[in-house]
Amino acid sequence: MTAQIITIGDELLIGQTIDTNSAWIGAELTKTGFDVTRRISIHDLRDDIIDTLNEVSGRSDVILITGGLGPTSDDITKQTLCEFFETRFVTDYDVLEMIEGMMKRRGFPMNDNNRRQAEVPESCRVLKNATGTAPGMWFEKQGSIFISMPGVPYEMKYIMQEHVLPELNKRFSSRSIKLKNIMTYGAPEALLAELLTGFEASLPGEIKLAYLPSSGIIKLRLTAKGDKTNLPDEMLQQQVEKLYRTIPELIIAEDEENFETVIGKLLREKGLSVCTSESCTGGRIAHMLTSVPGSSAYYHGSVIAYDNKVKTSLLGVPQNVIDRYGAVSSETVALMAEGARKILQTDFSVATSGIAGPDGGTETKPVGTLWTAVSSASGTITQTYRFGTERSVNILRFSTASLHLLWKQISGL
Amino acid sequence: MTAQIITIGDELLIGQTIDTNSAWIGAELTKTGFDVTRRISIHDLRDDIIDTLNEVSGRSDVILITGGLGPTSDDITKQTLCEFFETRFVTDYDVLEMIEGMMKRRGFPMNDNNRRQAEVPESCRVLKNATGTAPGMWFEKQGSIFISMPGVPYEMKYIMQEHVLPELNKRFSSRSIKLKNIMTYGAPEALLAELLTGFEASLPGEIKLAYLPSSGIIKLRLTAKGDKTNLPDEMLQQQVEKLYRTIPELIIAEDEENFETVIGKLLREKGLSVCTSESCTGGRIAHMLTSVPGSSAYYHGSVIAYDNKVKTSLLGVPQNVIDRYGAVSSETVALMAEGARKILQTDFSVATSGIAGPDGGTETKPVGTLWTAVSSASGTITQTYRFGTERSVNILRFSTASLHLLWKQISGL
Repeated sequence: MTAQIITIGDELLIGQTIDTNSAWIGAELTKTGFDVTRRISIHDLRDDIIDTLNEVSGRSDVILITGGLGPTSDDITKQTLCEFFETRFVTDYDVLEMIEGMMKRRGFPMNDNNRRQAEVPESCRVLKNATGTAPGMWFEKQGSIFISMPGVPYEMKYIMQEHVLPELNKRFSSRSIKLKNIMTYGAPEALLAELLTGFEASLPGEIKLAYLPSSGIIKLRLTAKGDKTNLPDEMLQQQVEKLYRTIPELIIAEDEENFETVIGKLLREKGLSVCTSESCTGGRIAHMLTSVPGSSAYYHGSVIAYDNKVKTSLLGVPQNVIDRYGAVSSETVALMAEGARKILQTDFSVATSGIAGPDGGTETKPVGTLWTAVSSASGTITQTYRFGTERSVNILRFSTASLHLLWKQISGL
Repeated sequence: MTAQIITIGDELLIGQTIDTNSAWIGAELTKTGFDVTRRISIHDLRDDIIDTLNEVSGRSDVILITGGLGPTSDDITKQTLCEFFETRFVTDYDVLEMIEGMMKRRGFPMNDNNRRQAEVPESCRVLKNATGTAPGMWFEKQGSIFISMPGVPYEMKYIMQEHVLPELNKRFSSRSIKLKNIMTYGAPEALLAELLTGFEASLPGEIKLAYLPSSGIIKLRLTAKGDKTNLPDEMLQQQVEKLYRTIPELIIAEDEENFETVIGKLLREKGLSVCTSESCTGGRIAHMLTSVPGSSAYYHGSVIAYDNKVKTSLLGVPQNVIDRYGAVSSETVALMAEGARKILQTDFSVATSGIAGPDGGTETKPVGTLWTAVSSASGTITQTYRFGTERSVNILRFSTASLHLLWKQISGL
C-alpha cells in the first residue's frame, strides 16, 4: 500500500508558496496505513505533468495530485489529465448548479471562467466540492488510482475528508501500522540520542524510531508494523513505558504536537485560567494559545506591551525598575506577569521580555536573550534563555520556552 | 540553468514537518536566475536516496539536498552520499574544533555522535556551518553540482548565504530573468482573471502571468525573460503600468508579500503609530505586525480581550453595549478600537470581534462572522465580513481583512 503526492504549481518551485498540502495529505494517508514514498512538485507545464504521471503510473496504489485547477489560464492540470487519460470534456450540470449557487451567495457575477470549471473529463468520477468552484476528479489506470484536487488547502481538505479518505479506507484493507509520538523538550538532538542509545539498540525489528526536531521541541516517533499475531499497539505500549523510564524528565506528552494543546487540556481538566503579557514575542504566545478550539474557556486575554510605556501604564511596572534593571530583566518580566495576572484576573500568567533582533542587542544582553516569568497564587518564577540571531526563529523559540515554563508550573513539576 | 531540490526525511512524507526549506531555496535560486524544475521529498532510505540521485544526475546544473545529516541513527544521507560518490570518510579537524567550541558554549558535553559529525566524504568540499554541528558538502559529478545541507532551516540558510549562493553566482553567468509581484486584495480569482482577460491576451510572449492566491490576497506574478536587446526590466515596467490602469482599486503594493510589511513602511514614512485590540483573532494581528523587524518604531502594543470582562475592564466598553448589541457587533468593536487607541496612545487602532469557530455561531451571527474597526483622530469606521467555517483559516482571513481596512485608512483611500 504505497502512495505518492504530486503538487503542481510554479509558485511551489519559485518558493512563493509553502507546500502545506503535501504535509497534510501525507499525515492523513499515513494514518490510513499508506506508505507515502515520494512527494514531487512540478511546474504548470504540460510536458512536466505528463512525464511525472507516466513516471508514477503503475508504481503506486494511489497518486494524489493537487493544484492547477483554478479558473485562470495558467491552470492546465485538468486539460492535461484529460489528455493523459485519453478522454474528452463534458459539462457536469450538478457542478454547474453548485457553482451558480455559490457565486450568487457571495454576490459575484457568474462568468465564462466559472462555467468552464463545470467541464470535467468524461472518464473520471467527479468529487463534489462544496467549498469552492473546482471539483475533484478520480481516475483509474494501470492499477493505480489518480485523484486530482484543487490546491487551495481547505478545498483540498474538504474533498479528502468528504470523498477520498472514506473511499480509500473502504478499498484498502489497511495494513497494521501504528504510530506513537512522544513530545520531548529540554535536550538537544545529539544529547537525546546519546541518552537513548541503549533504548534504540534494544528496539524490536518491527519498531522504528525517528527524531523530529522543531523549534526546541523534539518529537520521538515510534512506528510499529505488526499483524494479528503481534499487535503493533502492544509492542508500542511496551516501548513507550520504557521511554518514560529512560528520560522521565524530558517527556512532555504523548501524541501531542505542541505546548498549547497540552496546556489547554491541563487547564480544562483543572478548571484554571491563564493570561499573557508579551513584549518581544508580540502576540505569538496569545496566537498559539488561541489557535486551540475552545480556548476561550481558559484564556482571558493579553496585554502586549511592545512599548515600555505600556509596561508602566497598563501592567503597573514602576518606571524606576525599568530604568534600573532594563526592560529585559528578571525584575521587569516578573512584574509584567504579576500585573497582567491582576488586571486580567487569571490563575496563571506568563510574561516575556527579550531581544528578538535583528537590532536592539547589547554586549551584556545580545540578540537572542529572553527573560520569561510565570506568576500564580503560589508565587512568581523567572528564567532566562539565550537563543540565536534570527528574528522569526527567536520569536518562536522564546514562545516555546515560555510555554514550557508555564506548563511546568501548571503541572506542578 | 536548471536546478532541482531534494529534501530527505520521513517526517516530510508522513506530514509531521512542513517543507519550508524547499520554498526558501526555490525563491533564492529563482532570484539567482535558475529555473527550479522539480522538488522531490523522499524517505531516509538508502535505496530511495541512491535512485533519486541517479535520476537527477546529469539532468540539472545544480542539485540541492537537505536533511538526514543529524547526529542520530535515522540520519543516513552522509554515508549514502559517500557511497554514491564512491569515496570514503575522513575527519575534518576544523569542523571538529568548531563542534567542540559550540558544545562548550552551550554547556553540553561532547559525545561520539558529535564527533561523528566531523567525519566527511573525502571527495567533497566542506561548507562550514557556524550555526550547528553538521557541515554542508559540495560534490561535482557528470556535469552536475550536488550540495548537501542540514535540514534545520536556519543552518541550511546560513550555508546557502555564506557559501552556496555566492559561489553559484560566480559560476553561472545568470540568464536574464526578472520577476515582479503585484499584491492585490478584494476580488476572488475568477473575477480577477475576467478583469484581466484583455491584459493577459496582449502580453508579449516573453512575459508570463501567474495568479497566487493566499488567504484573500492574490499576488500577480509577472515573469520576463529577456536579453541585451530586450531588457526584461523595461518590458516588466510597461506591463506593471498597464496593470495599474486596468485594476487600480485592487492593487495594494508591488513586490510585497503581505499587509504587515506594507503597513509598516507606510507608518514609518508618515511617522505614525498603531495598536491593536483583538478578540477573535487572539493576537494573530499583533504577531503579524511584530514579525516585521523594527516594528517597535510604530507598534505600541495590544489588549487581547478574549474574555468579555476584559473588553469592559481594560477597554472601557460599557457592559450594556455588549448586552444590547452583543460582543460581535459594530458598536462593541468600535468602542474596543477607541478604548485601545486611548490607553495605548497611538494614531491608529484596529480591533476585531468575531466568531472563528468551530463553536459559538448563532442563526444571525454564524461561524465566520467578523466585525472589525479602525479608529484614528478622524473617526472610527467599522466593517463586517462573513468567511467560512474553519477556525485556523478564519483567524487568518479575519486578520487580513482587518489589516486591509487599516491599510485603507492609513493610506487615506
